[in-house]
Amino acid sequence: MRRSAISGFAKKAREFLGEEGVLQEEVDLLVYEQDGTLALRGKADVVVFPRTVQEMAKVVELAYNYGIPIIGRGSGTSLSGGGVPVTGGVIVSTARMNKILEIDLENEVAVVQAGVINDWINAYLARMGYQYAIDLGFQYMADPGSQRVSTIGGNIAHNSGGVKCFKYGVTVNQLRGLTIVLPTGEVRRIGGKEFEQAGYDLIGLITGSEGTLALVAEAIVRIVPTYESSVTILAKFADLPTAGRAVSAVIASGAMPVAMELMDKLAVEAVESGPYAAGLPKDAEAVLLIQVEGSLPGAKEEASKVAEVLRRSGASGVEIVEDPARAAKIWAARKQAFGAMGFVGPNYVVEDGTIPRKKLAEALMLARAAGAKRGLRVANVFHAGDGNLHPLILYDERKPGEREKAIEAGEEILEACVELGGTITGEHGVGYMKKKLLPKMYRREEIELMKAIKAVFDPKGLMNPGKIFP
Amino acid sequence: MRRSAISGFAKKAREFLGEEGVLQEEVDLLVYEQDGTLALRGKADVVVFPRTVQEMAKVVELAYNYGIPIIGRGSGTSLSGGGVPVTGGVIVSTARMNKILEIDLENEVAVVQAGVINDWINAYLARMGYQYAIDLGFQYMADPGSQRVSTIGGNIAHNSGGVKCFKYGVTVNQLRGLTIVLPTGEVRRIGGKEFEQAGYDLIGLITGSEGTLALVAEAIVRIVPTYESSVTILAKFADLPTAGRAVSAVIASGAMPVAMELMDKLAVEAVESGPYAAGLPKDAEAVLLIQVEGSLPGAKEEASKVAEVLRRSGASGVEIVEDPARAAKIWAARKQAFGAMGFVGPNYVVEDGTIPRKKLAEALMLARAAGAKRGLRVANVFHAGDGNLHPLILYDERKPGEREKAIEAGEEILEACVELGGTITGEHGVGYMKKKLLPKMYRREEIELMKAIKAVFDPKGLMNPGKIFP
Repeated sequence: MRRSAISGFAKKAREFLGEEGVLQEEVDLLVYEQDGTLALRGKADVVVFPRTVQEMAKVVELAYNYGIPIIGRGSGTSLSGGGVPVTGGVIVSTARMNKILEIDLENEVAVVQAGVINDWINAYLARMGYQYAIDLGFQYMADPGSQRVSTIGGNIAHNSGGVKCFKYGVTVNQLRGLTIVLPTGEVRRIGGKEFEQAGYDLIGLITGSEGTLALVAEAIVRIVPTYESSVTILAKFADLPTAGRAVSAVIASGAMPVAMELMDKLAVEAVESGPYAAGLPKDAEAVLLIQVEGSLPGAKEEASKVAEVLRRSGASGVEIVEDPARAAKIWAARKQAFGAMGFVGPNYVVEDGTIPRKKLAEALMLARAAGAKRGLRVANVFHAGDGNLHPLILYDERKPGEREKAIEAGEEILEACVELGGTITGEHGVGYMKKKLLPKMYRREEIELMKAIKAVFDPKGLMNPGKIFP
Repeated sequence: MRRSAISGFAKKAREFLGEEGVLQEEVDLLVYEQDGTLALRGKADVVVFPRTVQEMAKVVELAYNYGIPIIGRGSGTSLSGGGVPVTGGVIVSTARMNKILEIDLENEVAVVQAGVINDWINAYLARMGYQYAIDLGFQYMADPGSQRVSTIGGNIAHNSGGVKCFKYGVTVNQLRGLTIVLPTGEVRRIGGKEFEQAGYDLIGLITGSEGTLALVAEAIVRIVPTYESSVTILAKFADLPTAGRAVSAVIASGAMPVAMELMDKLAVEAVESGPYAAGLPKDAEAVLLIQVEGSLPGAKEEASKVAEVLRRSGASGVEIVEDPARAAKIWAARKQAFGAMGFVGPNYVVEDGTIPRKKLAEALMLARAAGAKRGLRVANVFHAGDGNLHPLILYDERKPGEREKAIEAGEEILEACVELGGTITGEHGVGYMKKKLLPKMYRREEIELMKAIKAVFDPKGLMNPGKIFP
């Protein structure tokens, strides 16, 4: 029956999406078995590529009527298995919904289709002196030359953060309006170009719901002026507790850095072993990268204040990087940290938890210990802005059992994050990989409340099934 | 039956709230017939004053089991009738839940009970160099000497903005965690001290829901460092379109003012007629107040840039107010604008809509026209940060029919806001007064979606009944 439902669906979908808008061949489907979560696979029955809100609505309605699971997919960079079709079904790809529809400088918003790549908005806005503040121009995938990066739709599904969230907040703080497609194929436009809305905040509800309530077709995002100048500060530390205290001291000083990123020794070693080496100090236990912005004199003044706080907090070296070319190189190095892991180990699992900032040193040491007791090394990068920790657990898949040990270590680290007062995900979602950890954060009753809300949107339970809820 | 339910409820409530925690006398209930919405009254059956989350939970459970409507109430400054018990029932006042429970500077959060007055947090934080960024220290009520101001719980229920939202966002952007009481009396803790949460964003959903889903008992709010210095810029304009374009020009210039407020001629006249007169120019069609902050040199530099933009945009006068005492006087004048209306007319209706900023001049002229054709004068204050317009429609209640005309003019203005691409509420909620306008903003289907979500929380429909939904 499932088989005939799929072929009935595919035939009808071809009528309005065209031949190239519906993939069903084994070889084509192979690409969609995985996302950035290398430890998980699933097999889709069909992949469709709508171009507009209306096409997305029609194809979702069709699938829902046939009773076929619906899995939204952007660039497939999820690290929690959110984009993996674990139950089979139809993948609705936003690859052809990749248009920037409008830039409205007076209202400081951009209107974009869900498949627009995060980086593109900034490439487009740069000449206007504007930016979209969620800077996720990372290359998550193992190949550092890859141009695959996340889409706005994916960012919304996961409420992603990025390096600039210390100052600008996370994705939900950038959203003014959404056009969503309900499982029934009905289109709902929520919000607009304005700040505030009457009635319930459906934008907040959809954001971070990982495709389990509705699909996002278009978004109205706020854009902000780019500052005239930015200055980068590079500090190194002889031990982790001192680095952790320095992060707190900078925050308590009243400085408003746009970005504040910490890398531990192994993360620095990885980056410095590859083509993106930027001369980061390899002898330090931790390296802290901070960026401040403003007018040139303002940014310089703030940078010297921050540098002073870092020195007083026990940094073993502080450098104000005034040369923009060198600063750009340093930030590129940071952004390549995941990709560079290949230089220190053949495979890795990346985790994503948050912790109260003052527990930073403790969390880093627990992460290392969780690896060490299984004979694995753990590198760490940390977005101090939202207390978002990314431990990278290195393993060698050729050694039997190591992959399982790495996954186990990852779970142990996330549980430690929760025990320290944090959460099991900062920006990569709960997805499939972490759903069994949800009860560590919420009581059964809170989870039931969420499921009751899901049932309002998706009574048949066809939207990204098998995700978030244990 | 209702009568016996009420006395049964009151008797049991007294057991744990004490005699002074339950009001039932006619004379006591009188105070709770109204909120800031002078045009609406309703009669509560009983008013209760829990002191803790547990007491709030117990009293809500009790009322729900008796089938009694539950109306949450902070300071009762609502301007949309949100706090008026139009169906009777029990008012759950947060007046005794007024404690600041914790200030955590390292995580930059404050933990407060829902009844804490907005102003108190800042009074408390000032000596630590911190602030809660939602500055609602207005005195909404007619008496400018009154110390009644809004509570954090009320701010959350309405997702309020305030003068600083241009830079810091609205209430939902300040929230990290909430403790809520469901209609069944069950307590749910959502979020925590961390930025991001796994699962659905229940905080966003509760914020702005005007007590129709659950009651807020406690909140964890982010606090931010106070800047070293601020500088105020005062500009005057000979006509509204020029003032509107100047607001857009300042935003497009990339400046990041903390506050940007516009008052029209009649609003200035009112303020300058009373004890808060601050020497604002009475000859201008519009006066724009802007505040920038930073280090002293940084703030001064930004102020001169903003002043230059204003001059180039056609301001007929621009003054950089460097004297902090004079600046404080000017902002106090702005904050007293509502109260000062008494100097230019005996009564007023205040409306609350948003508009796209570039439609400012158009909206102001429509507002005036809506009054003029009914023989009424309309003053306007405008938060440029979130495009939030507050028209103040003057009338004389001694003249038969004027009050009705004023309400009618208000509705016409809000409809115009929607037609200009805005909304029917910026921060005062939909409440009772504007529920019939909700269909101007949403289609039936979007409203049904909201009602379906309400039913998940409140199947009996007892939470603030008669509000938001038409």
